[in-house]
This record gives sequence, structure tokens and C-alpha cells, in this order.
Amino acid sequence: MHVTSERRLDDGVLERAFTLGEIPGILWMPASVSAPAPLILIGHPPLGLRRMYPRLAARARHYATEYGFASATVELPGSGERPRWPAAEQARADLRRALEAGEPIDGGIVDALVLPLVERAVPEWRAALDALLALPGIGGPVGYEGGVISVGVRLAVVEPRIVAAGLFAGSLVPAAMFEEARQVTIPLHVLLQWDDEGNDRQAALDLFDAFGSQEKTLHANLGGHTGVPQFELDTGARFFARHLR
Amino acid sequence: MHVTSERRLDDGVLERAFTLGEIPGILWMPASVSAPAPLILIGHPPLGLRRMYPRLAARARHYATEYGFASATVELPGSGERPRWPAAEQARADLRRALEAGEPIDGGIVDALVLPLVERAVPEWRAALDALLALPGIGGPVGYEGGVISVGVRLAVVEPRIVAAGLFAGSLVPAAMFEEARQVTIPLHVLLQWDDEGNDRQAALDLFDAFGSQEKTLHANLGGHTGVPQFELDTGARFFARHLR
Repeated sequence: MHVTSERRLDDGVLERAFTLGEIPGILWMPASVSAPAPLILIGHPPLGLRRMYPRLAARARHYATEYGFASATVELPGSGERPRWPAAEQARADLRRALEAGEPIDGGIVDALVLPLVERAVPEWRAALDALLALPGIGGPVGYEGGVISVGVRLAVVEPRIVAAGLFAGSLVPAAMFEEARQVTIPLHVLLQWDDEGNDRQAALDLFDAFGSQEKTLHANLGGHTGVPQFELDTGARFFARHLR
Repeated sequence: MHVTSERRLDDGVLERAFTLGEIPGILWMPASVSAPAPLILIGHPPLGLRRMYPRLAARARHYATEYGFASATVELPGSGERPRWPAAEQARADLRRALEAGEPIDGGIVDALVLPLVERAVPEWRAALDALLALPGIGGPVGYEGGVISVGVRLAVVEPRIVAAGLFAGSLVPAAMFEEARQVTIPLHVLLQWDDEGNDRQAALDLFDAFGSQEKTLHANLGGHTGVPQFELDTGARFFARHLR
């Protein structure tokens, strides 16, 4: 891990931009750390870190100032400045065409769009976790939150250092991920936007039903994809506070 | 309103048993009140106040000690020591028989069970509200929470002093109440137990969908009817704190 820049924000939070090989990332640390801080990995849709920065930083700073958590995120494969690959570009184009034509989204498009992203992203997030947990001041346990929900599901299944996950039921989910969801056993906090224009509500409810976890809670709110109410930010933080302390 | 007993609980909360005409009730006041306190009406299933007391008091004491809210509840018609009426007894017997036979619950049984309860209970809760808001130390605004959900829906529609409601999607809902739900416009916080043995999950989701409110949030948790997790108590309190301050 190579720190490329560092600055102290006005709330005292220390923000470090880093690269891990080719992959850019950001780490936010609480102003002062007495004991090693729990860590939250903040996931996001594949829209590029630069575009996602305001939302990610707002969450990280809330976690740091209110709960003393460290947070980190890394760029997804094929997003931001990272190289595209042809199959993903093709899948995105197919999705766009289907949406514009008002056609139902074919399962093949969803698979082509999401499964390769999961295959590529999950090992990178695990490598980032190795590097982050080796830093002074970060001790775990680790929570994961955010979309792409399939990345979160896979991480929850394969990465034992992640002990709780806050997932956003706001993306297309390949049929194969429903089977994987049954293998998830860590506590889950799932957000669902009731009127999410790009999402199938019943599929989101079915996915929630499929999770194997003994503790799972679904918070559904009125509104579209980006309309998650402000109060849910702290509800999610309190979920992590219960499980990362 | 006639106060029949009064005691100071060990957390400083003042608990008053009262009667309003023939109707018994309980009021819980914060240990000290500088400004008139907001009021939460705590609803409950028709099982009798004596049996419900531990759960009601736990919620009221949390509201009083953590948020400075006053809380009150009254006995439902036909419950506890209050006189039964033959049609309600018949409807209960019909429900019991259908449940024991494993038969689907006929809409006629649900209507006979719930609609007369709503018709009788709602004017009583409104009368209680008149009396409670006349007491020193209670100023409103008013929230309503708890089951029977149809009572909560009717109160939310007809009682303008109630500005927010926390509802428990855990009881049988007459078809007519879905239409009434569309008329609800106050902020709602709805709890749903995902594996509620006595409840139809899809009907609960449909009812949530029907509410006309611009702010509505559904919290679904794994487990049966009485398994609402402890952390949801405070989530509900924070919902009221947002809307009653």
C-alpha cells in the first residue's frame, strides 16, 4: 500500500488516498485512536470513486466522528480510471439498450454484468483488507457496507474477517447469488428503496428471505434509488456499533 | 380522569394508574419535566393490560428516561376486566377454530373480529387523549405506536393531534383497512416480523405499500410474532424523537 496524499479534514478526520498496486483507494481515520479501531469497508456502485466521493466521505466521517470507526474504500475493476474490459463494456451496452427499449432485463445480461465484477472485485477487497489491517491504529473487527450487493454477498460468504454487513438492495442480482445468499450467516442490515426505478422489489424481498443469517433486518423506505433518508445513515452506524465492539 | 394509584419507579419515572369512566389506563411521566413533554400513546393487542404490562412499561420507561417523553395506554374494549360482547366472543371462537383446523382465515372472521374493535376503541383513545393533554406536564405533539394495526390506521386517519405512528404489522387486517391506509399521510415506522406465524407476510407488505404517507419506513426482522429484537425498541424511539421534537 502506497499513500499518495494525506489531509486532515475540518472535523479532525485523517483522509489518506492510497494505491494498492494499480488500484486507488481512500482511508479515513478518526481524529484520535486510543485502541485499534474497527474497520468498515465502504462498497459502492461501479461509477468511479471520484463521482462517489461525496457520499462515501460523508458516511466515513460520520463513522469516524460518532463511533471512532476507520473506513476504507477501493476503486472497483473497470471503474473510474481503471481499465475497462470488452465483455463488461458489452454487458453495460446491452443493459442500457434493454432499459431504453423498456424491455425486461434478461438474466444473461445480469450475469454478464455482475458475475465477472464479483469475481474480480472480491479478491481485490480481500487484498485491501490484508493491507489495511496491517496499518497501525486499525484492529478490526471488520464490517462491509454498500452496493454492489452481489459483491457484499460474496465477501460475506468467503471472508471470515467480515463479521457484519450492511447491504443495499439496489442492484440487479444474478440468479446464482440467491444460492450464495443462503450461505451467509453473519448479521445483516439490508436497505431497500421501495420505489427503486432500476430494481425489482420482489427480487429484493426474495433475496432478503434467502439469506441464511440468524440476525437480519430489512429497512425499506419510500423513494427511489438515491433517496435513502438521512436517518438511515445513523441506523446503519448503530448496527455496526452493535457488532464491531 | 381519576388517578387510582401512583408510584415512583426506581428509574425516577412516575407511574399513575387511572380510570377514564369505566376504562382503566396507565400514564408514565419522566422523572422531571421542564417543558411540557411530548406524548406517546402505546397501543397493544387485546390481551389485557395486566398481561401486557411488562412490555408496555419497558417501552414507556425507555421513552421517559432516554427521551423525556410521557407515555400512556388504556385497556381495549372487551379486554382485561372490561365486559365482553357476544359478537366479539363469537369471532374469537371462529378464529380459534379456523386456526386449530389449519384452515385459511376467512375475511368475514377478520372483519367480525377487528372492525367492531376499531369502531369502539378509537373514540376511547381520542377521549383519553383529551384527558391526557389537559394534564400539567404533557403538551404534545402526540405519537401512536403498537398493535392492533387497524386501530393505529384509523387513529392516524381521524386524529389530527397524532403526528407520527409506529405500527406493528402483526395482526389480521380487514380488507376495508387497505383503503383507509391510503388516507394516512403522517410519517410511519412499521415493524414486521418476517416469520410471524399468525400473520400473512405478503398482506403486511401490501399494507405498507398502500399507506399514503410520504415518509414511511418498514423494519423487517427475522423471527416470530413476539421476537422483535431489542434494538428495534430504540430505533422506534428515535423515529419519534425526529417527529415529536
